[in-house]
Amino acid sequence: MLVENADDIERATGHRLRVARALVRDQAKERDFTPEPGVLTTDPAAIRDDPSIAVVAEVMGGIDPAGTYVLELLAAGKPVVTANKQLVAQRGAELFAAAVRASVQLRFEASVCAAIPVIKVLREALVVTNVHRVLGIVNGTTNFILTEMEGGATFDEALAEAQRRGFAEADPTDDVSGADAAAKMAILATVAFGSRVTLADVDYRGLEGVAPLHLAAARELDMVVRLVGAATLVDGKLDVRVRPALVDRRHPLAAVDGAFNAVMLQGDAIREITLEGPGAGGIETASAVVADMVSIIGTTATGFLQNDACWRTLDRLPPGELRSPFYVHLEVDDRSGVLAHVARRLAAHDVSVARLVQTPVEGGAVLHIVLHESPQRDVDNALAEIVQLPEVHAPPSVLPVISDRGVVELGWA
Amino acid sequence: MLVENADDIERATGHRLRVARALVRDQAKERDFTPEPGVLTTDPAAIRDDPSIAVVAEVMGGIDPAGTYVLELLAAGKPVVTANKQLVAQRGAELFAAAVRASVQLRFEASVCAAIPVIKVLREALVVTNVHRVLGIVNGTTNFILTEMEGGATFDEALAEAQRRGFAEADPTDDVSGADAAAKMAILATVAFGSRVTLADVDYRGLEGVAPLHLAAARELDMVVRLVGAATLVDGKLDVRVRPALVDRRHPLAAVDGAFNAVMLQGDAIREITLEGPGAGGIETASAVVADMVSIIGTTATGFLQNDACWRTLDRLPPGELRSPFYVHLEVDDRSGVLAHVARRLAAHDVSVARLVQTPVEGGAVLHIVLHESPQRDVDNALAEIVQLPEVHAPPSVLPVISDRGVVELGWA
Repeated sequence: MLVENADDIERATGHRLRVARALVRDQAKERDFTPEPGVLTTDPAAIRDDPSIAVVAEVMGGIDPAGTYVLELLAAGKPVVTANKQLVAQRGAELFAAAVRASVQLRFEASVCAAIPVIKVLREALVVTNVHRVLGIVNGTTNFILTEMEGGATFDEALAEAQRRGFAEADPTDDVSGADAAAKMAILATVAFGSRVTLADVDYRGLEGVAPLHLAAARELDMVVRLVGAATLVDGKLDVRVRPALVDRRHPLAAVDGAFNAVMLQGDAIREITLEGPGAGGIETASAVVADMVSIIGTTATGFLQNDACWRTLDRLPPGELRSPFYVHLEVDDRSGVLAHVARRLAAHDVSVARLVQTPVEGGAVLHIVLHESPQRDVDNALAEIVQLPEVHAPPSVLPVISDRGVVELGWA
Repeated sequence: MLVENADDIERATGHRLRVARALVRDQAKERDFTPEPGVLTTDPAAIRDDPSIAVVAEVMGGIDPAGTYVLELLAAGKPVVTANKQLVAQRGAELFAAAVRASVQLRFEASVCAAIPVIKVLREALVVTNVHRVLGIVNGTTNFILTEMEGGATFDEALAEAQRRGFAEADPTDDVSGADAAAKMAILATVAFGSRVTLADVDYRGLEGVAPLHLAAARELDMVVRLVGAATLVDGKLDVRVRPALVDRRHPLAAVDGAFNAVMLQGDAIREITLEGPGAGGIETASAVVADMVSIIGTTATGFLQNDACWRTLDRLPPGELRSPFYVHLEVDDRSGVLAHVARRLAAHDVSVARLVQTPVEGGAVLHIVLHESPQRDVDNALAEIVQLPEVHAPPSVLPVISDRGVVELGWA
């Protein structure tokens, strides 16, 4: 890409890029391209100590030795572009401190959602918009699986299809557990709110709790099930979480099908801006890496974006205080009075019902209850009482709801 | 916004911005804020000739005298940010030439889709992606009107509601005719393809040709009617047009409701990236203007994006050569043999049918025909023969179709 688009890069930056060195494990390995003689090296110092090298891209992955190399490069005064999500999410503080010390840039667009330029947009286009919420479908594997399950596939079938198409790794644990989405949300929250959020700060769940009953409920309510990351700023406190959620079909995130990603940025001046595109892929990731190299060359020595994205330290919001609309799935006796009992318990905790659909099932009825936005704690407390009612068959199943914008404030649980 | 977000701007650029001067028609006019003494001026030279002024924003609108002022500012070495769509679309060549001569930047993010950072994304994030198509819903007024008409309103009712809500001007001609969308598509095409496209190069139609039958056809086919701008690069030739189109419900552009805008960028490395958000509004436009000021301050003297977006001159594609799937609405006799006659004429021009729905109506039948992607000329020629058939009651009505991505190549007519 650097070779093929050398003219485009020169037009954008005034400089012609040349690939000086590439660090590899094995110089003799067969490759589907022929590097110039002398380009391949197995010695990281050959890059770090070459004064002709203006910018370095780290695309090796993993925390070690990638982190060590990046730190050494920054300390030696080399700007670095990284596509390494776990490295940024877990060791961001250390890396950015090194970049600031050396007054060089560390850019990381490709670490989140590949070719979707959400970091650039957040940092450069939304400087004065006070972004207070980031909602994202940031894992293509789980989105593909959920889209397939909507079409009738079982989880296992959908996962196998994702693996067959190359969307899922042989070991899909990081995707399915929500850990991959959590790392991306940590990076997005850090940039959006200017306060360091690491993977450990993200409360995440994956697809393990998604049951056929949720997909059926989604159909019933004209919604879809999506694994949604949400970073929220409430009165100067932040909350970052990843959850399966019901998404209203009219919401932009509901339209994200298959392995695509989307991020919605909500802010004072912009209301909401949504970016959608391929969140993975080799060439897509490469295009983001090269764009970051171009941006570095175009802004070196101006002070623009050489500072760390973090400039404050925000406390975490107590989880129970986060407000959201919720969906509650309740199996009950099919007899009069049940609804009144349930409604009374909800009302006692100031939780009000937006929609209620009752479906008869064998041995009783299912209540699909969509609650107006309420603090999670109030909903939890009301449900703790409801589960004690003799008419209630089993513990309720609860999902946050991402509803049509404007109708109900978008929220979380 | 500049005052309230001075800290954010300083963090991003290392510089604290101060509003030095504001050009107004009438200094004595009552304003809902109190400017610092000495800030208001009625003399453009007071801005041009003040060496302490680092960047100027033009938000006065209109071609004149705005164009003259911007040219003078650029010639005097002042970088300029403009929110003036018609100025950029009609006098871009002259303005950018002046900026290049003076080695200063002229940025124009706010001139297209307000807060949606599509110019920055095209120029800075997609440097190496070879964007070959831009599809956009870039006029909020017409999108609002079409969304309301979908809900059952007449055109006049929908327009009145848009005016009541402040989405439409008292004189909505520019919006309804497609001229506003055409100016935005000219700017987007220029940036995407690096070749100057002016308003005069855009073949546009507005809502005048949208009839209830199109809305009914959309419902029948699970599509929606949208006013879509399309800039397409085909074998080094470009085509820019604005048309009412049928958009498949599963396509990202179909999810754009009300006064929102969306732009889909299709390129080699990125497949497609869609940006959606509010395409108008005072505070949204202001946020884009300030972001451009921030970007200018952050990149001054590096050569980054000081060059004109145009670096080549592309020919226009002959309109008949543009390929697209089409919807054809045909009123015919309800008797056997009609379908065969129609199908034979289409086949004779190598035009094949993707879907066909026949609905009985009084005195005959309506054929909803969705054609596979074909050159517009072939479709036109086939229809010219079909309209001569004795079983056909009236000239056919034709709309381009924006179909589900991946299923049919997205196309135009």
